[in-house]
Amino acid sequence: MKIHIINGPNLNLLGKREPETYGSKSFEEYFRELQFAFKEIELSYYQSNVEGELINELHAAQENGVDGVIFNAGGYTHTSVAIGDAVAGISVPVIEVHISNVMDREEFRHVSYISKNAAGIISGFGLKGYELAIKSFKL
Amino acid sequence: MKIHIINGPNLNLLGKREPETYGSKSFEEYFRELQFAFKEIELSYYQSNVEGELINELHAAQENGVDGVIFNAGGYTHTSVAIGDAVAGISVPVIEVHISNVMDREEFRHVSYISKNAAGIISGFGLKGYELAIKSFKL
Amino acid sequence: MKIHIINGPNLNLLGKREPETYGSKSFEEYFRELQFAFKEIELSYYQSNVEGELINELHAAQENGVDGVIFNAGGYTHTSVAIGDAVAGISVPVIEVHISNVMDREEFRHVSYISKNAAGIISGFGLKGYELAIKSFKL
Amino acid sequence: MKIHIINGPNLNLLGKREPETYGSKSFEEYFRELQFAFKEIELSYYQSNVEGELINELHAAQENGVDGVIFNAGGYTHTSVAIGDAVAGISVPVIEVHISNVMDREEFRHVSYISKNAAGIISGFGLKGYELAIKSFKL
Amino acid sequence: MKIHIINGPNLNLLGKREPETYGSKSFEEYFRELQFAFKEIELSYYQSNVEGELINELHAAQENGVDGVIFNAGGYTHTSVAIGDAVAGISVPVIEVHISNVMDREEFRHVSYISKNAAGIISGFGLKGYELAIKSFKL
Amino acid sequence: MKIHIINGPNLNLLGKREPETYGSKSFEEYFRELQFAFKEIELSYYQSNVEGELINELHAAQENGVDGVIFNAGGYTHTSVAIGDAVAGISVPVIEVHISNVMDREEFRHVSYISKNAAGIISGFGLKGYELAIKSFKL
Amino acid sequence: MKIHIINGPNLNLLGKREPETYGSKSFEEYFRELQFAFKEIELSYYQSNVEGELINELHAAQENGVDGVIFNAGGYTHTSVAIGDAVAGISVPVIEVHISNVMDREEFRHVSYISKNAAGIISGFGLKGYELAIKSFKL
Amino acid sequence: MKIHIINGPNLNLLGKREPETYGSKSFEEYFRELQFAFKEIELSYYQSNVEGELINELHAAQENGVDGVIFNAGGYTHTSVAIGDAVAGISVPVIEVHISNVMDREEFRHVSYISKNAAGIISGFGLKGYELAIKSFKL
Amino acid sequence: MKIHIINGPNLNLLGKREPETYGSKSFEEYFRELQFAFKEIELSYYQSNVEGELINELHAAQENGVDGVIFNAGGYTHTSVAIGDAVAGISVPVIEVHISNVMDREEFRHVSYISKNAAGIISGFGLKGYELAIKSFKL
Amino acid sequence: MKIHIINGPNLNLLGKREPETYGSKSFEEYFRELQFAFKEIELSYYQSNVEGELINELHAAQENGVDGVIFNAGGYTHTSVAIGDAVAGISVPVIEVHISNVMDREEFRHVSYISKNAAGIISGFGLKGYELAIKSFKL
Amino acid sequence: MKIHIINGPNLNLLGKREPETYGSKSFEEYFRELQFAFKEIELSYYQSNVEGELINELHAAQENGVDGVIFNAGGYTHTSVAIGDAVAGISVPVIEVHISNVMDREEFRHVSYISKNAAGIISGFGLKGYELAIKSFKL
Amino acid sequence: MKIHIINGPNLNLLGKREPETYGSKSFEEYFRELQFAFKEIELSYYQSNVEGELINELHAAQENGVDGVIFNAGGYTHTSVAIGDAVAGISVPVIEVHISNVMDREEFRHVSYISKNAAGIISGFGLKGYELAIKSFKL
Repeated sequence: MKIHIINGPNLNLLGKREPETYGSKSFEEYFRELQFAFKEIELSYYQSNVEGELINELHAAQENGVDGVIFNAGGYTHTSVAIGDAVAGISVPVIEVHISNVMDREEFRHVSYISKNAAGIISGFGLKGYELAIKSFKL
Repeated sequence: MKIHIINGPNLNLLGKREPETYGSKSFEEYFRELQFAFKEIELSYYQSNVEGELINELHAAQENGVDGVIFNAGGYTHTSVAIGDAVAGISVPVIEVHISNVMDREEFRHVSYISKNAAGIISGFGLKGYELAIKSFKL
Repeated sequence: MKIHIINGPNLNLLGKREPETYGSKSFEEYFRELQFAFKEIELSYYQSNVEGELINELHAAQENGVDGVIFNAGGYTHTSVAIGDAVAGISVPVIEVHISNVMDREEFRHVSYISKNAAGIISGFGLKGYELAIKSFKL
Repeated sequence: MKIHIINGPNLNLLGKREPETYGSKSFEEYFRELQFAFKEIELSYYQSNVEGELINELHAAQENGVDGVIFNAGGYTHTSVAIGDAVAGISVPVIEVHISNVMDREEFRHVSYISKNAAGIISGFGLKGYELAIKSFKL
Repeated sequence: MKIHIINGPNLNLLGKREPETYGSKSFEEYFRELQFAFKEIELSYYQSNVEGELINELHAAQENGVDGVIFNAGGYTHTSVAIGDAVAGISVPVIEVHISNVMDREEFRHVSYISKNAAGIISGFGLKGYELAIKSFKL
Repeated sequence: MKIHIINGPNLNLLGKREPETYGSKSFEEYFRELQFAFKEIELSYYQSNVEGELINELHAAQENGVDGVIFNAGGYTHTSVAIGDAVAGISVPVIEVHISNVMDREEFRHVSYISKNAAGIISGFGLKGYELAIKSFKL
Repeated sequence: MKIHIINGPNLNLLGKREPETYGSKSFEEYFRELQFAFKEIELSYYQSNVEGELINELHAAQENGVDGVIFNAGGYTHTSVAIGDAVAGISVPVIEVHISNVMDREEFRHVSYISKNAAGIISGFGLKGYELAIKSFKL
Repeated sequence: MKIHIINGPNLNLLGKREPETYGSKSFEEYFRELQFAFKEIELSYYQSNVEGELINELHAAQENGVDGVIFNAGGYTHTSVAIGDAVAGISVPVIEVHISNVMDREEFRHVSYISKNAAGIISGFGLKGYELAIKSFKL
Repeated sequence: MKIHIINGPNLNLLGKREPETYGSKSFEEYFRELQFAFKEIELSYYQSNVEGELINELHAAQENGVDGVIFNAGGYTHTSVAIGDAVAGISVPVIEVHISNVMDREEFRHVSYISKNAAGIISGFGLKGYELAIKSFKL
Repeated sequence: MKIHIINGPNLNLLGKREPETYGSKSFEEYFRELQFAFKEIELSYYQSNVEGELINELHAAQENGVDGVIFNAGGYTHTSVAIGDAVAGISVPVIEVHISNVMDREEFRHVSYISKNAAGIISGFGLKGYELAIKSFKL
Repeated sequence: MKIHIINGPNLNLLGKREPETYGSKSFEEYFRELQFAFKEIELSYYQSNVEGELINELHAAQENGVDGVIFNAGGYTHTSVAIGDAVAGISVPVIEVHISNVMDREEFRHVSYISKNAAGIISGFGLKGYELAIKSFKL
Repeated sequence: MKIHIINGPNLNLLGKREPETYGSKSFEEYFRELQFAFKEIELSYYQSNVEGELINELHAAQENGVDGVIFNAGGYTHTSVAIGDAVAGISVPVIEVHISNVMDREEFRHVSYISKNAAGIISGFGLKGYELAIKSFKL
């Protein structure tokens, strides 16, 4: 089983920014823990701050025969029709993940162009959300 | 560890209504499967169609020393300030679960008075969402 | 043919409140007249001020093999997603009835969560609306 | 008793358009059935696609001593302040009828400039709605 | 000097409808009084309930070398982009007149598609508004 | 003089929840103090988390010949058309009370379906608001 | 007959500001022409940039037995509930005048807190609007 | 191949109104050029300022076995639900054409009740838009 | 204890305007009654129609060591950010009072820029509201 | 004559995604057909999923002396102020093309930041829209 | 070079209110520092809490041959059409200054009736904003 | 002191586009003048049309120990939550600069996702705004 994690803008700052809130662990470190915990799964990881590169990556996931995508589109979640179209345009199931509880933040974060076509949504569990998303593919 | 599942209005129809969509399994049957799968956890279950009884049940969860609540408020999710206040008023962590992807349904279902104070939100995974919610307490 | 009439909040005040406007007849008296006029139909009647009990009653109508429901949800018409879901969730046809012309009242009464799934809507005819609803089942 | 039925734009297409949905009966045929069923009532019928001609017809109903008007204004229902003013300006009671359940269609059809001054509203019963409207005058 | 008065829908009911409010004088009678009072002006008058005929009449005013139009578009004021375009499309100055104070009525009457291109607006003076409009051409 | 206090959802948590903010006094204790302070008044008290039971209680107040109702509908204040209708439907004067300053909280709490028909509104004075409400009946 | 003209903020700039648009005549000069033209009327004039002083002046008009007020509230027209209340609070008829066609300007100028209680509204005729307003009192 | 061009309100003014902008050519002249350029197509043309006559003409196109309609509904585009229903109600493909770029004009022109059911939309090309529409039927 | 009452625009008309509604008592007379009833309190009173003078008075209350302000800002309540800032900028507690039930009036009166920073709000009790406000300082 | 076609996000999926709807032809194949059909025109083609690269390409079109751009911005049409600015910032005429009828899709697709500055808009004709756009440059 | 600083409501409280946030320096002290730093410029300063007096002062600036105005309208920024008109009505360039970052405060502070006609806007720099504004006149 | 200037989309066109409005100077030329004028400051400059590259550059500024960023995000200002998050996510102070007065342009430009976290905002001063921003770091 091949699962691909795609992270969007500013998530490369994890571990550097506000460590008292988000912890001092970078996503790369967390990703290695996930690989260790789910040895039976072929996990891969991609991050970009560029909207169009995230679209390219979603297209590539389809090409590469990935079984599932775990996608945290960061700030593009709330503004990008184009990313939403890309999620709708591929047949690989996409789980939408948010680290923080976006519903407890500014109103413009309550809109998501991805949710409509997501296979499931997990929000507010911190980094644990990625782990739950992987488990959802195994149920 | 004590986890209490609370289901709101119309969820008593599961298994009876539109079985081709929701399956022919009632929530009671599914609940027994959960109990079997998570033997180490003290699982309990409550359902009501009455808004105020759900509030009473949330208060009681606090009184009874429950470790976590998994809450699917059904249609009250989108209209009940009072239930939202009850979630905010107890210190037990509450996971909000929706069986269907509410963001792919009518616009009035995109609002939730519970999310703001939820410890996490899981939506669109079907009945599997309850299982993920239980797992989230164990991570 | 079994037809069940369900009345929502405050309709128990009929005949007591503002008799110069609504007349001095209670719904119970009016119901006996309906039974007299439609002897060939098995008519029954239920009233509650509690939102969830109305949902229970709609579920029960389905269980009891009722042929049609005539439903005046009063103030819950405009706010209750949960009642709307209950109407959608049963296969018994539900006729929505309003005694007054709700479109000639406050703007918040112009919204109905029931209409979308109603088999028909009758509004503004006073108590005569119930009679028309019964007749609609006979056409 | 004289009752006048007025139909607005596109209702002349009944029976020609989408017969699998609306049936293959034209309104003229249906009207003859109504005349047969209500022999004791002087029924008349008018149809126009022109907004102003409908206003003229409402004025004429008043002049001609009609006892009641049954009015399906079609698409003008949702946009015409002028027709709404005409309904308000005559003392003949006007019953607003819609064949389909307009509340289960596009949002712009949820507005009616006629309802406020209608003597009653019947919606979603198909052609049966006209029959119920006639009966309402007899109760 | 040639001044043409154009009245829109339902204004033919003046004098018949609600005489205690609007008086028992028809517009035709009032028009004769205006002709008597402004003998030096060539006054003419047109009324129609049909939106498109009012557009035709505005076009004709231009063709006929009219010096000014006094226009009460009734209910079309608030909904007709097409009439607004016709007013914008002719070079004859058009004075918008309303008998009642439309700003003290329903909110949907607070919008006018004519005002933007009107040479002036007079509202709330009753029938006197037409007289003021004529005088405005003489100042 | 008979005055009846009705409290809505979650107000049974007073004294238990966030004592540093709301104090450690339950409403029952506070109510005994009010009874002591206003010995000349027949004070009674009712609390429920169920919307429809609050409606029943308002109806009962009318039946029981109560002189005034002091009503804190909690979260139902902002969502319940049915409770608003119940307040409108009884002739007993109802004073709306809020412990906190609802205008300094979330925007959805700025709406009240009760205010329109309240005999007076007191908000933001903490528990003192009930005392002021009782005094208002004595002025 | 005593008629009082009240001008609001920035109207003291007339004749100084943008003379190619508004002409080089100050309102004082124009006012002397009005006095000359309407010798039979006791005309008076007041201008202030201060919202509250305009309210005072409206109150004073009532005290002084003025027969009519002609009021151009300038920018306060669109924002001042207090001025609107003052117009509503006096029994002297108030004609609302605007020099420019406010409906052909920014959207925030389409709102008026005065219109609802005005005896009539004249807009878009330039300075001639004041003359028409005086004439309206004489009809 | 039979193609029918229908023009709505004010398009009869083409060539007369603002010739520096729209040119001095009337639509009739332009239509003769189209006939000359597309000799192999049976082209016909109709114009009316009356909303209901445009509906009649759309119905007639269906009756007459027209292969395609090119429709510029002018100002009715933005307000007429009834015309939109007529376009939806016939099976002849309808191309919506606008001479000017309506998206670069007032906001109320950004709405079209026709687009949803149009076979294609061409806007902003001036009179060339009609020619492109004819060509679209030939591709 | 020093308590200062500040009244805003149009409240100087009390007793003169609509005496059948508001009574024939001026606020000055009522104020003397209050002084008589609360001899132990140093009561003072100020009224102005000028927005900025009300701000000055709020600043002065702070300077003068007043213990509490009772403030009825009239129409400025709903429009004045500047007055709201002044209330927020002083540390003296300010009780917001409205004579009428503003929630039962026009929608634009449902907004208050003062409430957010008020120590309490009393509305709809008529002149009694001032008395309740004074009592609230004594509890 | 040099014409440059620019396609935005997800249009590289044409022919791969939903072939039953969009056909199994990729845009590259279709582009070769266009080149064959319009031999007299120098046609070129560019696609990118990256918003900023589309802006770069629009700038480059200006630099390279292109005579016209045919632009389908996909999902960026509805969200990108920056692309709209780029279209406005170059003097090359830009034709906006959409394959599907965007007005018959979700409401957020009814907004376009490009239309305002487009030389023309063609929508809903499928791939034929590109051909019509080329022809529009030749008229 | 003559530069005039105008401060609006509540800015007289600077140095007194919340010194930990705004510092303990009054604007008068700060103004003397500015005079010292910009000796080559004729600096003057005015403050008022009265909306109309600020309008008067803007008019006077024009009369007095001032070269530039630095204007902090405080709370009137967000509500005063009349002040916006005054800024538009004078030819002296006006720089709009805000001490705090108004975009990081309540939503109603995001609107400014002054910005549209301001020569420049400086916001969020604290008292330094005035110094930058003076420098802008010297560049 | 190290200050980094970041310019967003279309700002590379400065000096080429509409030179009569923006002048014929490119930003590169202007930047050399700034370097000359502020020799004591280490100034650097970056421009990109790609949203994600601007995010990368903001992150890099933090890494490189820059003392301040001057940021003109062009069209992304109004649409990019992701860029706003990047500004919030770094501790380097960011000054938001706009060359034109965005408040005097289209309504969609009145929103900024950057302002909330900007250290200051300077708008409408043309290229001088960058100079003022540099000076603000020196005060």
